[in-house]
Amino acid sequence: MIEEALYHMPETEYAYARDSGTFCLRLRTARSDTPGAAVIYGGKYDFWEKRQKKEMELTYRDRLYNYYCVELKPRDLRLVYVFELLEGGRRLYYSEDGLTEGYDFSKAYYNAFQIAYLNPCDVPSPVDWMGSACFYEIFVDRFFEGNTDKDRSYINLPWGQIPTPKSFAGGDLRGITKKLSYLEELGINALYLTPIFKSVSNHKYDIEDYFEVDGIFGTKEDFRELVDSAHERGIRVVLDAVFNHVSERCRQFRDVVKNGRSSNYFDWFIIRGDRVDREKVNYECFSQCGYMPKWNTSNREVQDYLISVGLYWLREYNIDGWRLDVSDEVSHQFWRRFRQALKSENPECVIIGENWHNANSYLRGDQYDSVMNYAFTKACLDFFAFGALDAEGFADRLNALLMRSTDTADNMMLNLLDSHDTHRFFTEVGEDRTKLKSALAVLYLFVGAPCIYYGTEIALPGGYDPDCRRTMDWAKAEERGDIWQLLRGLTRLKREESALHIPKAKIYAEGNAFILERGDIRLKIDGESFTHTIERMG
Amino acid sequence: MIEEALYHMPETEYAYARDSGTFCLRLRTARSDTPGAAVIYGGKYDFWEKRQKKEMELTYRDRLYNYYCVELKPRDLRLVYVFELLEGGRRLYYSEDGLTEGYDFSKAYYNAFQIAYLNPCDVPSPVDWMGSACFYEIFVDRFFEGNTDKDRSYINLPWGQIPTPKSFAGGDLRGITKKLSYLEELGINALYLTPIFKSVSNHKYDIEDYFEVDGIFGTKEDFRELVDSAHERGIRVVLDAVFNHVSERCRQFRDVVKNGRSSNYFDWFIIRGDRVDREKVNYECFSQCGYMPKWNTSNREVQDYLISVGLYWLREYNIDGWRLDVSDEVSHQFWRRFRQALKSENPECVIIGENWHNANSYLRGDQYDSVMNYAFTKACLDFFAFGALDAEGFADRLNALLMRSTDTADNMMLNLLDSHDTHRFFTEVGEDRTKLKSALAVLYLFVGAPCIYYGTEIALPGGYDPDCRRTMDWAKAEERGDIWQLLRGLTRLKREESALHIPKAKIYAEGNAFILERGDIRLKIDGESFTHTIERMG
Repeated sequence: MIEEALYHMPETEYAYARDSGTFCLRLRTARSDTPGAAVIYGGKYDFWEKRQKKEMELTYRDRLYNYYCVELKPRDLRLVYVFELLEGGRRLYYSEDGLTEGYDFSKAYYNAFQIAYLNPCDVPSPVDWMGSACFYEIFVDRFFEGNTDKDRSYINLPWGQIPTPKSFAGGDLRGITKKLSYLEELGINALYLTPIFKSVSNHKYDIEDYFEVDGIFGTKEDFRELVDSAHERGIRVVLDAVFNHVSERCRQFRDVVKNGRSSNYFDWFIIRGDRVDREKVNYECFSQCGYMPKWNTSNREVQDYLISVGLYWLREYNIDGWRLDVSDEVSHQFWRRFRQALKSENPECVIIGENWHNANSYLRGDQYDSVMNYAFTKACLDFFAFGALDAEGFADRLNALLMRSTDTADNMMLNLLDSHDTHRFFTEVGEDRTKLKSALAVLYLFVGAPCIYYGTEIALPGGYDPDCRRTMDWAKAEERGDIWQLLRGLTRLKREESALHIPKAKIYAEGNAFILERGDIRLKIDGESFTHTIERMG
Repeated sequence: MIEEALYHMPETEYAYARDSGTFCLRLRTARSDTPGAAVIYGGKYDFWEKRQKKEMELTYRDRLYNYYCVELKPRDLRLVYVFELLEGGRRLYYSEDGLTEGYDFSKAYYNAFQIAYLNPCDVPSPVDWMGSACFYEIFVDRFFEGNTDKDRSYINLPWGQIPTPKSFAGGDLRGITKKLSYLEELGINALYLTPIFKSVSNHKYDIEDYFEVDGIFGTKEDFRELVDSAHERGIRVVLDAVFNHVSERCRQFRDVVKNGRSSNYFDWFIIRGDRVDREKVNYECFSQCGYMPKWNTSNREVQDYLISVGLYWLREYNIDGWRLDVSDEVSHQFWRRFRQALKSENPECVIIGENWHNANSYLRGDQYDSVMNYAFTKACLDFFAFGALDAEGFADRLNALLMRSTDTADNMMLNLLDSHDTHRFFTEVGEDRTKLKSALAVLYLFVGAPCIYYGTEIALPGGYDPDCRRTMDWAKAEERGDIWQLLRGLTRLKREESALHIPKAKIYAEGNAFILERGDIRLKIDGESFTHTIERMG
């Protein structure tokens, strides 16, 4: 046995509470090691004399490791446990002191594993609707122009032409409202909108006023109508919370520019020196963009202000959650307070971070519910586009992703093939419709909430920003072509099939084919032709 | 290379900020693998084009693994990095996607490691005085009776006789104050007192009123005099916060017993049914002790109440910190709020959990500063008492302990050989003075704050509770015997030697000898005779 591969850690994705009475445990071994595995468990104060045993099941496997899983519903919420491994007639124990030939239960208080007590406030309550959510991301300016009575003088991009970084095409909130029946027909039941707040840019990630809808997108009443109409159709609405940075045009930064250190808002930003120097950019900002100064999210006043933004749109307009822009650069302390405030207002609101990397330290139940799953994106690119993974490698990678987080978080992951921040997946696969279709099948059958980027249903192409932000082609959408039809089937499956609502999957390779099973549904992708089939087993 | 052994994880003990400008990184390999290791790092937004490289040093080794460490002080607080491993002419890269032959820096935004941004509020500020602290734990009833004018009728244990669970010997706060010069002479500069609050027991872990000093121990004025006198001598005072449970005699539980579900305090406890049933113990309590009902620390009102206790003694009596009883069963949410409140009042107050097991999920900088290091206790027992570890095994175990937590937490660990909750270490080693002395040398030279239990300096024996709570033998203390003298030397060394104030150690075996080096100080313990020497290396 490769002892170095063994891993378990309480109160991480290896040992967590699924609800206030259920513990989920995982134990990792090397892929080459398949011992019999069981957990020996009991209560914290009588483990030395009373114990139970439950076999663990080898449930997931990635390139390097096997993962054994088990669920426990003990009477005592003070869980103490060690693992028993059986290999070639040898019985071994795995505790905090590592692998040992014997185990002295009378001294377990020193080195057994434990979840000392299950306090309900520490158990993350899942957002149930995420289990059957089918998301659709809309870049508002490029989706549909619904209000043609407005002052259209700002529009500088004729619909259908290729955008530049400064293009305005006229898409607006009423446009989305008008297309809700279209989205409903496609099977969409959740929208993620890029920012709608007052801002001079087309993308509006440089927000000037978080409490106003930008005039080119419409009014607050337009937004209310959008949310209400969406809700009537069973469609949720998630907005984009840009809390890492702000526009230099916001009142707070302008005050600091004017008054320097004597401004009440000086400590709302992170400035070297006593005054803002726009030339030298002597302050922290988003990337190298001086026009987007970074909030000091260590400052309680800033935290309070941004929380008030989060609450305002939740309370006043009844939105269903927030996607958090550049959330990895914002303080953990802020996200903890943000979660507390928002979940107190509405536990069903979803909080989705934009962390491209392992978001472990944000997904412990005290900050986000989930993240935009760009690691899933990368796995799909490596298999379908870059040829970096074969079917087995792809299966291994997806299993590794599931083991990165708790089942609870996995089931709320916002899985995506592309977004306004990437190349279009269709372009990445060389406009190969077969590959796009098979990737979409994986997207909808993988654990978590699928999110397609507007235009995916018509195979809209596009390179990196701004090319990935082309205007929607409504004539093509009217055709209800092959990918549209596939998506309508996949959304129905995702919404209606209970096996797709729980975080259980079996993912492996069979020869050069990739297999993904959920309940009795089986997706098979041929590793050479990339064609896929979805079947019922049984 | 055993790839399964490789490990790194951002924002854990493998990658953390030591201060608001310094990142500490660790990389783990199998013990049998000693590749050249370096970190390739840069900023989040220009890593694809600008990178630096720094060699890592193999700093710690335990039974299974090597740990490579490096410190970085980058200009950009958005740290992105991958590891480079050189072995037998092969150059390999280690990223979130595992070990690979090459690495595509242009796609690093998908799978490099990162600490996305260093927000100061997330960087735990160390309690500096812990680096040179020499703690002394006092079980108040058994230490010294300073006020002989009091009503002594409760005393039922003649000083010097063996205690029972219900013994009262007469020790009090004035007794401690009177012995401060004794403790100062021994070199003690921090006291940890078992609970002093109103309670009917001798140990007072069943608190009836957190805002009162128990009458048998004295008055609040006695306590003020103790703290002030201690501070005058440079001795800190840490109290025991019993926030997991309370006495059934507290006013809140009495109200619930009387009024059942209609009590305002009903949800302050965790009760099955509408009324308290003392016979059936239909409520959560400490262990199986019905007279110590468990607080519902998920309840915000309970949280507010217990935080007010923590703040009261900090503000009004200027104590230096809290040791948290059964802290592992209390909610994380509570500890986060507790830390926030106390550190706002006094960032120098120390917060020490009583977690016997790996306290990883409490030591991320948002809850405790450190824990009572019972894993250190166990390592010492395994080496000195149980014969379960040889010198090399002991060195491996101690190194593993250092790698369990960040350097910041390691340097504040409350290291101990025994306490009121264990057998006396002297008894565990069969009253072998040589072993006790060598163990004390390890205690004082290991990374963290040593804590001796009262009487250690006179080799007081004792089995499990209540035997480990015998009365202090002041006649013997007057002798200033061999162990007393050793301790006086060790406390001086710990207080004065700067190499002992920073979390760096070199721990290994040389033949059958155990070696612990800090700066130019070298402790050597013979693995057979258990004799020790402390030398300056030249």
